[in-house]
Amino acid sequence: MKGLAMLGFDKIGWIEKEKPQAGPFDAIVKPLALAPCTSDVHTVYEGALGERTDLILGHEAVGIIDEVGSEVKDFKPGDRVIVPAITPDWRKLPVELGVPAQHSEGMLTGWKYSNIKDGVFAEFFHVNDADMNLAHLPDDLTLEQAVMLTDMMTTGFHGAELADIQLGASVAVLGIGPVGLMAVAGARLRGAGRLFAVGNREITFKVAVEYGATDCIDYKKGDPVEQIMEKTDGFGVDHVIIGGGPATAMAQAVKLVKPGGTIGNVNYYGSGFDSHDYIPVPRMAWGSGMAHKTIRGGLCPGGRARMERLIELVRNKRVDPGLLVTHVKHGFEHVEEGILLMKDKPKDLIKPVIIIDY
Amino acid sequence: MKGLAMLGFDKIGWIEKEKPQAGPFDAIVKPLALAPCTSDVHTVYEGALGERTDLILGHEAVGIIDEVGSEVKDFKPGDRVIVPAITPDWRKLPVELGVPAQHSEGMLTGWKYSNIKDGVFAEFFHVNDADMNLAHLPDDLTLEQAVMLTDMMTTGFHGAELADIQLGASVAVLGIGPVGLMAVAGARLRGAGRLFAVGNREITFKVAVEYGATDCIDYKKGDPVEQIMEKTDGFGVDHVIIGGGPATAMAQAVKLVKPGGTIGNVNYYGSGFDSHDYIPVPRMAWGSGMAHKTIRGGLCPGGRARMERLIELVRNKRVDPGLLVTHVKHGFEHVEEGILLMKDKPKDLIKPVIIIDY
Amino acid sequence: MKGLAMLGFDKIGWIEKEKPQAGPFDAIVKPLALAPCTSDVHTVYEGALGERTDLILGHEAVGIIDEVGSEVKDFKPGDRVIVPAITPDWRKLPVELGVPAQHSEGMLTGWKYSNIKDGVFAEFFHVNDADMNLAHLPDDLTLEQAVMLTDMMTTGFHGAELADIQLGASVAVLGIGPVGLMAVAGARLRGAGRLFAVGNREITFKVAVEYGATDCIDYKKGDPVEQIMEKTDGFGVDHVIIGGGPATAMAQAVKLVKPGGTIGNVNYYGSGFDSHDYIPVPRMAWGSGMAHKTIRGGLCPGGRARMERLIELVRNKRVDPGLLVTHVKHGFEHVEEGILLMKDKPKDLIKPVIIIDY
Amino acid sequence: MKGLAMLGFDKIGWIEKEKPQAGPFDAIVKPLALAPCTSDVHTVYEGALGERTDLILGHEAVGIIDEVGSEVKDFKPGDRVIVPAITPDWRKLPVELGVPAQHSEGMLTGWKYSNIKDGVFAEFFHVNDADMNLAHLPDDLTLEQAVMLTDMMTTGFHGAELADIQLGASVAVLGIGPVGLMAVAGARLRGAGRLFAVGNREITFKVAVEYGATDCIDYKKGDPVEQIMEKTDGFGVDHVIIGGGPATAMAQAVKLVKPGGTIGNVNYYGSGFDSHDYIPVPRMAWGSGMAHKTIRGGLCPGGRARMERLIELVRNKRVDPGLLVTHVKHGFEHVEEGILLMKDKPKDLIKPVIIIDY
Repeated sequence: MKGLAMLGFDKIGWIEKEKPQAGPFDAIVKPLALAPCTSDVHTVYEGALGERTDLILGHEAVGIIDEVGSEVKDFKPGDRVIVPAITPDWRKLPVELGVPAQHSEGMLTGWKYSNIKDGVFAEFFHVNDADMNLAHLPDDLTLEQAVMLTDMMTTGFHGAELADIQLGASVAVLGIGPVGLMAVAGARLRGAGRLFAVGNREITFKVAVEYGATDCIDYKKGDPVEQIMEKTDGFGVDHVIIGGGPATAMAQAVKLVKPGGTIGNVNYYGSGFDSHDYIPVPRMAWGSGMAHKTIRGGLCPGGRARMERLIELVRNKRVDPGLLVTHVKHGFEHVEEGILLMKDKPKDLIKPVIIIDY
Repeated sequence: MKGLAMLGFDKIGWIEKEKPQAGPFDAIVKPLALAPCTSDVHTVYEGALGERTDLILGHEAVGIIDEVGSEVKDFKPGDRVIVPAITPDWRKLPVELGVPAQHSEGMLTGWKYSNIKDGVFAEFFHVNDADMNLAHLPDDLTLEQAVMLTDMMTTGFHGAELADIQLGASVAVLGIGPVGLMAVAGARLRGAGRLFAVGNREITFKVAVEYGATDCIDYKKGDPVEQIMEKTDGFGVDHVIIGGGPATAMAQAVKLVKPGGTIGNVNYYGSGFDSHDYIPVPRMAWGSGMAHKTIRGGLCPGGRARMERLIELVRNKRVDPGLLVTHVKHGFEHVEEGILLMKDKPKDLIKPVIIIDY
Repeated sequence: MKGLAMLGFDKIGWIEKEKPQAGPFDAIVKPLALAPCTSDVHTVYEGALGERTDLILGHEAVGIIDEVGSEVKDFKPGDRVIVPAITPDWRKLPVELGVPAQHSEGMLTGWKYSNIKDGVFAEFFHVNDADMNLAHLPDDLTLEQAVMLTDMMTTGFHGAELADIQLGASVAVLGIGPVGLMAVAGARLRGAGRLFAVGNREITFKVAVEYGATDCIDYKKGDPVEQIMEKTDGFGVDHVIIGGGPATAMAQAVKLVKPGGTIGNVNYYGSGFDSHDYIPVPRMAWGSGMAHKTIRGGLCPGGRARMERLIELVRNKRVDPGLLVTHVKHGFEHVEEGILLMKDKPKDLIKPVIIIDY
Repeated sequence: MKGLAMLGFDKIGWIEKEKPQAGPFDAIVKPLALAPCTSDVHTVYEGALGERTDLILGHEAVGIIDEVGSEVKDFKPGDRVIVPAITPDWRKLPVELGVPAQHSEGMLTGWKYSNIKDGVFAEFFHVNDADMNLAHLPDDLTLEQAVMLTDMMTTGFHGAELADIQLGASVAVLGIGPVGLMAVAGARLRGAGRLFAVGNREITFKVAVEYGATDCIDYKKGDPVEQIMEKTDGFGVDHVIIGGGPATAMAQAVKLVKPGGTIGNVNYYGSGFDSHDYIPVPRMAWGSGMAHKTIRGGLCPGGRARMERLIELVRNKRVDPGLLVTHVKHGFEHVEEGILLMKDKPKDLIKPVIIIDY
């Protein structure tokens, strides 16, 4: 079968691999819609995960089941499914202890596609533990909406969950690429009052407002911390979500959040601060350790039940993740173009989706 | 001054009392808008609080400050203010321990108006600790909206808080009078997916849908537990909010909520079950004590900071509490009519508001 | 093989059954130590679970592995293991949502032994998902200590967890049979200050004090609510754990706990209140629904990770569950005598253990 | 009156000041026992709070009431009292929102003594809001024990609270000066299983073991992270408390804690990392932002109710804070010597106490 792979640093290309095999609890899926992610760009062009050779890319997909293992009960060939980017091993001790399942065998081990196994940019791809990791794709979601659930929506919403937003509280979202925009929507869904969106591009501000932002802050027009401090009489905000940005976004977040407030990070830091491989927590703004400014950060929740809850939000019109999709292409071969779009980020792009018609 | 009082069981009437005095931290307020509450009806016609003689009724008001004590810093005569129904004593040890301030001197002691001191249905009324309990009324809220914050909105939203609603989870609200309707809105603001509203009157179903209900359940058309069980394939819901009803509403809630789920009660139970003065938790549906179905219930949060957060929700268009107001009368003298409306509940009533023009 | 079974209501007896078979993830275990539980008595003599015919009893065991399935990785024949009373199915959607695993397929479904499959009072018994449900028995625990972990310790400690005990807070434990005594120990381990133990028998008061009780309340010497209220100047306590008793224990708990406090129930209610099948929550003491007295209750946590954490507490001398064991018998045939002891509860009994020597 | 003051950087000395005055809610207290704190050393010799002139030092005291304001209800001259280091303003909006009262008027504003007003190393000192901030000193606590409650015990225990310790979980405490030792005791009181204490001095290891440490790690004998990783088969621990150390202690904590675990910081960072004024969070060990390793840190809880709960722990023999006190001197004049002891840290010192006999 054909797949679009990282051939090595800075190089992507189409390769041939054997079609994957399903173990007794697994499924093999053919893609119906795919979305490239900034992480794919990080992986190939910044070496965020280290050197990889001939690793198939991609972790955002909805598809149609080609084959299931003997022990799979709830899915059968022909079923249309949502495939979360994160597909944990559920039979692991950390899960018993309430540790997020994303770390079921150790840090980040629930993230398999385009990380520790071949990704979804292939004619077929493998799903571990299908009954626990796939969700049926209902007819009332479009393919474009559905593929946004697999990573963008669950990640952005997790930012709002980590930031522990309270009804009527003020929130700032730092970085409003597709994840940050979903964090804006998630903050609104948790009951944010005033909601600052920090970005720079016109199109993202437009969608941020549709998702509930009340104040758009352009970081090219001045230090965003100062801009928000001025708009809040020097108090800052109750909660901050870091949806994107360099390591210094954490320093901004700590400065912006009030004592007793919480920072929720869903930003993937590809590099540290300055020449150090550290995320910087500014000492004074953190009250020299005494300010009760809580810092939380974590990988997006995967698995079937999460996808099913996100489906409920879309079908009940709580949010439309389809607003993220600015570019749609038909045909598997357009995946490569999609990655390059994410790399080059033209002015009118938020997120591209590739539809595969059979 | 004049006030509308409970004269004794089953009797209300206008009485004359001395204008209240402000201590050093207190304020005296003249009403701009008043709303009668079902609790006033319970108090007078069901004796819910026991016998009271010449106690001025009412606990929902916005007003204009007439006088402040020497130590009040943030308010001055002439300021327009929102007066929460609950005005706790903040300098009390339970508050230090994180006990809800509504119980700052003992159970329910934060509820003062028309309970342990004269209420707001008077030409003037007293506010303890003005800096901690009043909120400035901004121009972008109508009087009708603002008076809904003082009890209906904070109470209904507290139901959603107590029920600990998770993103995309299913919720049932039992009882959709004005408090239950605000619970519907609160559930949506916390991210409910499917959202069942259990009531009976057309007008409340209409507003419930505007507030985010996805399924309206008429309890006169069959056991609401059975109706919801049927619509959820026998699973029930993740969270239940009890917004109104008799003691048996608790039994319904325990049956409806899934194992591991949470019930948030903001219903004020005027009487128990059958001849017993108990709220019944059905043994089998509660897993004989083993089902991890958590039961929480509490008085609405009062105080200034709560009101300020609710203001943020209204002014940022997250919710419009004004949808509750079906009847508006001008003139202080209409308060009596308002109480009788709440008592008789005509078909087209959700909540009446009396505006006082000076 | 031989097993001690419930033959029908009020009847126990030895029966012959086929040795159970291990599926690919399962194990078959021979008992090394067994303990009868009050639940076994409820099951047989009160019909708590309904009619059962020839169901082997028992759910508290440590043993030696006889056989494992092909997919079991961490255990092999000959290993000595602790077998938790609760052995959930971990690959279930509620587990993904954070619902306690005891309810992984629906309410209480994690409780299998002597409930929905044959129990451990047999020459061999079956363990589902061995890698997730068994724990290695270390040499530094005695068999008597180890068998107390499987139900008594995890259940009693769960009471302390559910009651959400804060450092230095006051706690009352209602009912100090073996579960309640472990709740006393658990409350101390979570940092209780003053700690009331409500019981009646001398031997349980003695062990309660060793586990950290500061005040022993004999319920035969007067209403325990009144006794504790008197000792707390009418305030009651911050947390209550219900470790045993009839349905009215809940009413006592609600009266005893302060506004804002939490009740943790690990009592299994075999019947309701009066002629009703309800657990009674007293309306007035619950603030007519407004007191913020939270009621939580749930089945003990099972599974391997829980057992491993309890092992750490015993081996690091945080607590000695062996203090519960008042009667030790050697020989499988003594199991029947053990059940009868639990039924008759002689004065000097807390918990009997049967050791099987091979 | 006489007081021991910071005269300027690097200089302490006795000065004369006017006796403080009590406002209506305040009290004036004469010291019975005083303890110098490492913070006093930081303040004077490292300029941690910036330049101060003639500011009286000290924030750990028990005393006897000399005078109370007209509105004080629960205390009178002659009463013996515990004075928490942190004495918040309770009538502030952040308190209404559940923000820790230590930040009641803004970050750290609850810390008044030797920070924003004269401290307790004086013949008389001032207490704001006596009813809310003082606790009666019961006869069953020694003065040495009691003065340890005011800062050491509440701070160390708060580390255990922030780290959210679960029953039987593994914990590491980094830094075992008096605060870290109390963190060890606090971790045990919350139910820690294995408990690593990282320090260097013999006397602190000895007390750590008495407080429940199971493994003493000498950081001079090798990288403490590596030592603990080796003892935990490379897994690390479930919770870390930072009780002391330089900014790099945070980096150690992040490396040591498992994915999904929590770090509780009660370390006061006097300076940042390297030449940067940052607390370093190591990017890779923090899962590039994705590891769900939560970082919490905050000032110790003050106020009356906190002190009363700590009293309950001491009087009920849950912990003996007196073990910290290695040096006792009689006479107010010895306070200066006490500070110098804290500065020079002789081998046999944990904490000195000065008793004032009248």
